[in-house]
Amino acid sequence: MIRFGSDYQEGAHPRILKRLAEVNFEQSPGYGEDEFCAEARRLIREKCAAPEADVQFLVGGTQTNFTLLAAALRPHQGVIAADSGHIAVHETGAVEACGHKVIELPAVNGKLAAGQVSEYCRRHFADDSHEHMVMPGAVYISNPTELGTLYTRGELNALRGVCDHWNLMLYLDGARLGCGLASPENELDLPFLASVCDAFSIGGTKQGALFGEALVLLRDDLKRDFRYILKQRGGMLAKGWLLGLQFAELMRDGLYEELSDHAIHLAMRIRRALREANVSFLVDSPTNQQFPIFTDEQVRRLSAKYAFSDIRPLDDGRTAVRICTSWATRPEDVDQLIADIRAELQPSR
Amino acid sequence: MIRFGSDYQEGAHPRILKRLAEVNFEQSPGYGEDEFCAEARRLIREKCAAPEADVQFLVGGTQTNFTLLAAALRPHQGVIAADSGHIAVHETGAVEACGHKVIELPAVNGKLAAGQVSEYCRRHFADDSHEHMVMPGAVYISNPTELGTLYTRGELNALRGVCDHWNLMLYLDGARLGCGLASPENELDLPFLASVCDAFSIGGTKQGALFGEALVLLRDDLKRDFRYILKQRGGMLAKGWLLGLQFAELMRDGLYEELSDHAIHLAMRIRRALREANVSFLVDSPTNQQFPIFTDEQVRRLSAKYAFSDIRPLDDGRTAVRICTSWATRPEDVDQLIADIRAELQPSR
Amino acid sequence: MIRFGSDYQEGAHPRILKRLAEVNFEQSPGYGEDEFCAEARRLIREKCAAPEADVQFLVGGTQTNFTLLAAALRPHQGVIAADSGHIAVHETGAVEACGHKVIELPAVNGKLAAGQVSEYCRRHFADDSHEHMVMPGAVYISNPTELGTLYTRGELNALRGVCDHWNLMLYLDGARLGCGLASPENELDLPFLASVCDAFSIGGTKQGALFGEALVLLRDDLKRDFRYILKQRGGMLAKGWLLGLQFAELMRDGLYEELSDHAIHLAMRIRRALREANVSFLVDSPTNQQFPIFTDEQVRRLSAKYAFSDIRPLDDGRTAVRICTSWATRPEDVDQLIADIRAELQPSR
Amino acid sequence: MIRFGSDYQEGAHPRILKRLAEVNFEQSPGYGEDEFCAEARRLIREKCAAPEADVQFLVGGTQTNFTLLAAALRPHQGVIAADSGHIAVHETGAVEACGHKVIELPAVNGKLAAGQVSEYCRRHFADDSHEHMVMPGAVYISNPTELGTLYTRGELNALRGVCDHWNLMLYLDGARLGCGLASPENELDLPFLASVCDAFSIGGTKQGALFGEALVLLRDDLKRDFRYILKQRGGMLAKGWLLGLQFAELMRDGLYEELSDHAIHLAMRIRRALREANVSFLVDSPTNQQFPIFTDEQVRRLSAKYAFSDIRPLDDGRTAVRICTSWATRPEDVDQLIADIRAELQPSR
Repeated sequence: MIRFGSDYQEGAHPRILKRLAEVNFEQSPGYGEDEFCAEARRLIREKCAAPEADVQFLVGGTQTNFTLLAAALRPHQGVIAADSGHIAVHETGAVEACGHKVIELPAVNGKLAAGQVSEYCRRHFADDSHEHMVMPGAVYISNPTELGTLYTRGELNALRGVCDHWNLMLYLDGARLGCGLASPENELDLPFLASVCDAFSIGGTKQGALFGEALVLLRDDLKRDFRYILKQRGGMLAKGWLLGLQFAELMRDGLYEELSDHAIHLAMRIRRALREANVSFLVDSPTNQQFPIFTDEQVRRLSAKYAFSDIRPLDDGRTAVRICTSWATRPEDVDQLIADIRAELQPSR
Repeated sequence: MIRFGSDYQEGAHPRILKRLAEVNFEQSPGYGEDEFCAEARRLIREKCAAPEADVQFLVGGTQTNFTLLAAALRPHQGVIAADSGHIAVHETGAVEACGHKVIELPAVNGKLAAGQVSEYCRRHFADDSHEHMVMPGAVYISNPTELGTLYTRGELNALRGVCDHWNLMLYLDGARLGCGLASPENELDLPFLASVCDAFSIGGTKQGALFGEALVLLRDDLKRDFRYILKQRGGMLAKGWLLGLQFAELMRDGLYEELSDHAIHLAMRIRRALREANVSFLVDSPTNQQFPIFTDEQVRRLSAKYAFSDIRPLDDGRTAVRICTSWATRPEDVDQLIADIRAELQPSR
Repeated sequence: MIRFGSDYQEGAHPRILKRLAEVNFEQSPGYGEDEFCAEARRLIREKCAAPEADVQFLVGGTQTNFTLLAAALRPHQGVIAADSGHIAVHETGAVEACGHKVIELPAVNGKLAAGQVSEYCRRHFADDSHEHMVMPGAVYISNPTELGTLYTRGELNALRGVCDHWNLMLYLDGARLGCGLASPENELDLPFLASVCDAFSIGGTKQGALFGEALVLLRDDLKRDFRYILKQRGGMLAKGWLLGLQFAELMRDGLYEELSDHAIHLAMRIRRALREANVSFLVDSPTNQQFPIFTDEQVRRLSAKYAFSDIRPLDDGRTAVRICTSWATRPEDVDQLIADIRAELQPSR
Repeated sequence: MIRFGSDYQEGAHPRILKRLAEVNFEQSPGYGEDEFCAEARRLIREKCAAPEADVQFLVGGTQTNFTLLAAALRPHQGVIAADSGHIAVHETGAVEACGHKVIELPAVNGKLAAGQVSEYCRRHFADDSHEHMVMPGAVYISNPTELGTLYTRGELNALRGVCDHWNLMLYLDGARLGCGLASPENELDLPFLASVCDAFSIGGTKQGALFGEALVLLRDDLKRDFRYILKQRGGMLAKGWLLGLQFAELMRDGLYEELSDHAIHLAMRIRRALREANVSFLVDSPTNQQFPIFTDEQVRRLSAKYAFSDIRPLDDGRTAVRICTSWATRPEDVDQLIADIRAELQPSR
């Protein structure tokens, strides 16, 4: 079985394992107050050109999302998200378990538009009964989105404007941020994100680390007492230096970018090949998640050899599958997949 | 200003005030452990033909809804509701503040269909990632709905079947239940509700009481320790006998039905008159909330004399308003309203 | 059975019932946006000499406490309270249900001392692991306390100083505030409370109203969006004008003070008589709750005729009971009680 | 600086790192549904002689504690714990953030006695106002305790009896369980724990793993839907196989026991040496945490060379420090520490 089901099915880049072995018997203080975290924090601030940013390291993405939102929102506030957003669909109501409604707006290709947010807020405050409704307090977006799509600079600037106007925190979930930045269609960079967001995360789990997300906090009120809330929500790792070590390694010598380039390179190879073979896609994704559409029969046969995920039946009887590449994907597996799909599509069958 | 804005703008039926004055200096034990509550509980059990039911009295509707749902759901469970449902829209995220997602399904005329719930549950449990999604644990419906519409016996039986199949609690919010039961199109009665629901409420606030909702608990696990949770969520009134007294009065000698008949009679008079005048409606409501559609200009002129609520602009440039009647509405006000609307609609204008 | 068990066992002062009957068919807007609430708010601001104060009206005391604390605290903050405080003991964990720890410090006679709070905070912030512990964010006191005792001006000024130093909100639960202010040993008044507290409540339920607490908010950040949270936590009464009407009546023409004086006058008569009869007390209370100590046998016999509450066995085999007077207590009942206790204490028995 | 501050300051046992490197490029399904977790689960069930137990793997201890308690308690229930218990003191109110009060009873040497729990429950249910108080729903103990002490078989059997009588879940936090079982004074073993507890954890973080706690669930209602709650609370690691791999390695060939023996051996060496030198202790601990008492001056001088933690000033002017050994502690560091303490205690100084 060759797995294209996700980008978190292998361990970590060998440089990380090597470094881990080297320092295994060094003694570090606990809970993220160590030299590794300090170095990783310094490197991320530099890459973001944000010397005042606070950077916290958490174990997982769901944890990162709900811990930030718990820290940012007052009890009556909710967070606006695309109805396809991870916090709306795939975190078992973690945000609600913190007491906050996820206000779901209909997404187009996984993205939330500034106009939607603006219109929602305008209606909220224009309504005589607005105190009877959840007040929008934050906007959650992911980049790449859950469908692999990307925000443009203009779209993010527009969201920033809306957030300023309605006093909303803008948070970007960057679980796959590296793949976003490495995409041929990318318009963003870290300094821009640090200037446009109130907080954003840089994913490690899907980008070469064993686990870990770096959360970049730009607004002062988000930084205040954040570590208390981190501890309360289970996000303060005893051996916090494990997170610092991994992010320091990823952020050094361009490793993070290199691993993302690898994943994107192979994903684009798949996209090109399938386009040439006239396969249609659920969505046009310029990143490491590709969503080709096959017949059920084709999916069934391919699944005997390859593991896909997020297999969704479409209304027309066909089926979309998700193919993920990652830093660890082997080029020969991609070649084989392409060949097998092509064979599958031969008219002779 | 003549108010048709809501059904909770006057005090209480005079019989309630009279009884209140009579017993004002009697000494009662606190927190609902008094004779008035016992009597009201007995009367409600009788009307429901449910001798085993527990009946608890709460101050308000939002409180009733979230207290029951807090008592019924485990942390990972959510409650399915129409996207127009009161808990989804107009309770400032009270259910989420208890930690639970309101799973909103698109309503038709304010109603949730058994098929929608069934399909949602089927998809949930069929999804490989269902543990990453909020588990449906309850169904919330209101009758009459927020749009004045009613469930049929068949529809409720179908919902019951789905709830049995998927192990969901079925809760009916009866904030305006009296008006529902008094409607010419009603198919339900209290014994039926007690047999088909796991819990339902009987509204007092909008039906002749100063305030108060009676919550009828049918399932044993919902009854257990409910009063602890009632206290914790602020719903245990120190002078709980005030609630018992009001419900005992309403439930005696057909007062509750009489007051509902009054409201419905006047609402149907408005409905008939407006239909005859070729006014169109947002929804065809057989209960005490009517939603006629006017031009903005007409709404503006009528609003100088009458208070409406829930004024919603439609896409075609016209505006729907909500007209509410209640136990306290004066027939002469209704006559005047009808006359003024007719005048407003004259071609000469 | 003559009830001295609590101060909330009768209805309301007749002036309130009379006013209620007078306006019963007036139409008021809902949710506290009516003229009665506006008038009550104005009267309370005047009495407090706090023209900028926000005043919100809630139904019950538990609700008032947790709604304010939910509005005031961030997720990692707790509230410091006496271990005998109402929020620590008798609200079924309502504050914890909002996510916040009640940090219990050992009370002396129901009171919390500034020095205790200061020392707790000093230790918290001096501890290297303070981020692993709940941050103190507020101080909860009640006046009179649950044991009937009172804070002095000096004690409150000292608490204010500590709260300023450690950035804590100071909240005074005044469920029985009237009886506190009417005590012969009282040093406080409303303008002083408005100057020393960030928020405090003025109880209605135990002071002549059917129900209701007025919450006075002094600090601007507490006022902001408070009504959203009020709605979310079930505290926004549909017929909010019922609360305004009652508080307007109580605050007019000295009614609140008159009712409190009555309760205190009778309680002091009991205190004097029992002292003269050499009865000892659990605590020396200058307010409407008296805690005499009897033998079990005496309690048993008295309980045949009188209802007491909070009957607590002491380590020495005797039993303390709580005797409550209120605005509605009849002098002849007090005289009878005193006579019966005296008879009970005769050496002949 | 030689660190005796905690037992989580190094990485992992080399066998774990080696295994990690070997399988780094194997592809595993996510979220704990992999072969490594299955193997670890099987090994733990065998060691516990509990073939029906569910075993879940979580990242950290705080997370393990609050996730279990969130799954087990209804909203009105709290958890009884020693006032020195980790959930009461050092988890930033994580249990309260899930809505539940930690009911703190005064510990003796870190331990909770069955009699205390029983008496608390008896009083709760005997109190007329018990519905106004948090219902005890679970008992939390740790073994070894936060002070390094151990429960006896008899003590645990007595707690089990009390929990059966009052319908409480019994949960044992085994963050340092290995060191407990390896103590010369230990009376317990895993099959006994599986028979006496409803749930208990087996710590990895402090016992040779990079991170991770195994949670053993014995009661069926705790197993049901646990993974939903695990996901919701941030405890479901994307690469869950990392946890399985570590526990499988620890549980194989006696590694877990070997590492615990090492830590205990060195701790006992310190205990003996300090006893011989007439050092007194805060508590007599038979496990890997030792709490000797020194003068401030001695602490100051030793701290120049050694890192301790949990340095607590005593009322008599002296200071207790915590000295931790672990699987990774070097014997030569222990020898040096003993020598330096002896020198420090020479009368010549």
